[in-house]
Amino acid sequence: MPETEIDTLIRLFSRLPGFGVRSARRAVLHLIKKKETQLLPLSAAIQNVIDNICVCSVCGNLDSGDPCHICRDQRRDEGVLCIVQDVADLWAIERSAAFKGRYHVLGGLLSAIEGTGPEELRLPALEKRVREHNISELILALPATVDGQTTGHYIAERFKNLPVRISSLAQGIPIGGELDYLDDGTIQTALKARK
Amino acid sequence: MPETEIDTLIRLFSRLPGFGVRSARRAVLHLIKKKETQLLPLSAAIQNVIDNICVCSVCGNLDSGDPCHICRDQRRDEGVLCIVQDVADLWAIERSAAFKGRYHVLGGLLSAIEGTGPEELRLPALEKRVREHNISELILALPATVDGQTTGHYIAERFKNLPVRISSLAQGIPIGGELDYLDDGTIQTALKARK
Repeated sequence: MPETEIDTLIRLFSRLPGFGVRSARRAVLHLIKKKETQLLPLSAAIQNVIDNICVCSVCGNLDSGDPCHICRDQRRDEGVLCIVQDVADLWAIERSAAFKGRYHVLGGLLSAIEGTGPEELRLPALEKRVREHNISELILALPATVDGQTTGHYIAERFKNLPVRISSLAQGIPIGGELDYLDDGTIQTALKARK
Repeated sequence: MPETEIDTLIRLFSRLPGFGVRSARRAVLHLIKKKETQLLPLSAAIQNVIDNICVCSVCGNLDSGDPCHICRDQRRDEGVLCIVQDVADLWAIERSAAFKGRYHVLGGLLSAIEGTGPEELRLPALEKRVREHNISELILALPATVDGQTTGHYIAERFKNLPVRISSLAQGIPIGGELDYLDDGTIQTALKARK
């Protein structure tokens, strides 16, 4: 029997992160039952994203214009770039509303194991940006993993002869974090960095 | 700031069962990054479902034709109807490949608390089907809950003067079920129904 329309939709849903076949079935049935209020709006929203969302050629953000609304915003400090691995990290920092500079999305991390080199990331674009614009500071907001640290060291090394300051997000105990639930590495780092 | 295209899509995804804002963000970002291989196929599959899927006027199944492929299948026994609460239950029984009759989807259960009466369900349609066609057996495949049992009793009562046999799915220990993990009710029922 050929795959039905519903089966195709379930299969595509089940490929999404966090989804399995079972939850995909539930979601698809839910959508079909709420055709007017959920399925049709979802279809329109997907079409809007397909038609309008593109990668910002300046920073690598995803937005409905190129340059993106952050790169176009004259009120944001052009001289400070926050370096992130992924658009999801950019979104997280934007939600905190704590940063008023601009971003540079690497699109990944250097990885010896996966064979990801500087040319696979948006590092040449970052160097061009630092050389051609008046960038005073790069804030590394990279994950505290081996690959994150490797990438941070590489950036510090690559830009050490350019007049740009390089800083990293502070590491320590998360606000509201119970000591009991934190891993040893975090507690060790927080102890060493005590002030 | 007005809601962006991406925010709209995240909001609609976060309404799906099993999804929160966090998992919706992950799914949407994943889709945008895999535009060609996942976002475009998903959009097409949703459009196909919107254009083609309808409720079967005979049994209440969802399919791309009315009557549905099960109601059209002459090899399936027209005289035996399996009564289910929801299309999801019909799918589950079809996956088991153990049933070669036809279905009747109630679209819910009688519920005093939620005020669901027989007219809200597809019970009049069931009575019409039993009276006008040569139905010999109704198999109640309803959940083993208070509402499921109430609905089962109601159906047995409503059809008791018609020449149709009424049966229910057997209750007991699931195949592969560890006694240790089963609830008391299941063990009690299995003990009483021992053979």
